[in-house]
Amino acid sequence: MRWYLPVLLLMVSPLAQAQERQWRDPDPENLLYIETDDGRAIVELAPRFAPKTVANIIRLSRKGAYDRQTFYRVIENFVVQGGTEAGDDIKVPMEADFDGAGLVFTSAQFGDPFAPETGFVLGFPAGRFTPEGRWWPLHCPGAVALARGNDPDSGSSEFYIVNGQAPRHLDRNMAVFGRVVYGMQVILKASRGQPPARGVIEDESQRTVINRVILAADLPEDKRTPIQIQRTDTLNFIGGLDDRRERRNAFFFRRPAQFLDICTVPVPAQLVDE
Amino acid sequence: MRWYLPVLLLMVSPLAQAQERQWRDPDPENLLYIETDDGRAIVELAPRFAPKTVANIIRLSRKGAYDRQTFYRVIENFVVQGGTEAGDDIKVPMEADFDGAGLVFTSAQFGDPFAPETGFVLGFPAGRFTPEGRWWPLHCPGAVALARGNDPDSGSSEFYIVNGQAPRHLDRNMAVFGRVVYGMQVILKASRGQPPARGVIEDESQRTVINRVILAADLPEDKRTPIQIQRTDTLNFIGGLDDRRERRNAFFFRRPAQFLDICTVPVPAQLVDE
Repeated sequence: MRWYLPVLLLMVSPLAQAQERQWRDPDPENLLYIETDDGRAIVELAPRFAPKTVANIIRLSRKGAYDRQTFYRVIENFVVQGGTEAGDDIKVPMEADFDGAGLVFTSAQFGDPFAPETGFVLGFPAGRFTPEGRWWPLHCPGAVALARGNDPDSGSSEFYIVNGQAPRHLDRNMAVFGRVVYGMQVILKASRGQPPARGVIEDESQRTVINRVILAADLPEDKRTPIQIQRTDTLNFIGGLDDRRERRNAFFFRRPAQFLDICTVPVPAQLVDE
Repeated sequence: MRWYLPVLLLMVSPLAQAQERQWRDPDPENLLYIETDDGRAIVELAPRFAPKTVANIIRLSRKGAYDRQTFYRVIENFVVQGGTEAGDDIKVPMEADFDGAGLVFTSAQFGDPFAPETGFVLGFPAGRFTPEGRWWPLHCPGAVALARGNDPDSGSSEFYIVNGQAPRHLDRNMAVFGRVVYGMQVILKASRGQPPARGVIEDESQRTVINRVILAADLPEDKRTPIQIQRTDTLNFIGGLDDRRERRNAFFFRRPAQFLDICTVPVPAQLVDE
């Protein structure tokens, strides 16, 4: 009875989709607020991928090391960078990829030009060679990563945030330790200087000031931004990936390439009604 | 003497690079200013790719049809869209691709997931199947294209601008008729509404107003923004593409994929010193 399994799946799948939980509550110990005069950007940290990097960023944030720092290097369609002078002598060993054992990899696409397979892990876009090998988070828009010199282990406090087309050539070469899940526009609004710099904004008065970097858990509850984040390990989310890959609707008069660029997939956060 | 040609090229190439002109002066008849309270974004139009679309956009701009319109649909990492109510009954037949005869295609990458070959044409990122076939402009960040309904020929006045990771699945399905060459941040600053909408911003008071859309040529010279745009058909530019593809420098402790995502390649504009 070869028809049995597909039919059963067809019958069960809408039920399962309806019952599964689509949103998750992020851990406030894991949410970093980056605040400028334009508002608050919320970064979800990835201690599972980059534990030493995340621990050091939290340590520096708790010292107030980022407060009154600036976004000193802002390049259109590349990155917003800051936190140069927040560091001390602690260097963080490179954490460019991680052991995926025990984690769910929601597969999105094989044959990506920068990774044999792309998908989502704990809400983060990620790549992998094989299920058993190392996995790595991707430089999609909103990715937050540790800056460094030529020495892979030379990163300390300085970080950058991807503000345009994903610079995927940096994948596996940098420690991505978080991603902006809410308030991305605060990052996009960072001053490029006048005329727009293609590197460091030499005139310090033209740089956007980071007023504060603080962990959500260190704020009283009424000062936190109550958000939920869409889960990426649900049947509903997987169905959405298929729709985006196939583009079967009538709008497309020419059939697109049936290739899914994972960095175009939204993983939305929403405010919780209270 | 098989060594002759390469050696000659090696000798001539730096000379040729030094002598070639790296910047061009765009035609003011071909530059559209989109102005909001955040400033002026400059769009270079592509009449060679989408002549009817460009002519209609210029006609509507000259009527003032876009003035006091809004960006009514703004989606993070996708598009900023406006100009709905600027239209009249004129629909523009689809111009999704064009005949490249007589144009220089500066090749950047073969085997792109969305196009057999990518490169630059007249400063625009473009794709093609073969040199002899049709070519098409790409939905890289800053691309400006005509919105439409399911009917490919239903576009009129409404346009969108890519504000994040390139939605390349729209390539060849839409009429890209320009690209933002300067002032991209004016577009990125467009209000998403509060809380951020993932579609139409229902509360009209939260939309960014387009104060004016005007052709540079229709302004007196002292009201224009004097820009030059980097040429994409020079030896110098081609060398830069190779560097970006190969990433041979010491910063990369793991060799990247040697794949060039064309949408990461900057084609800068700069203010002319006067």
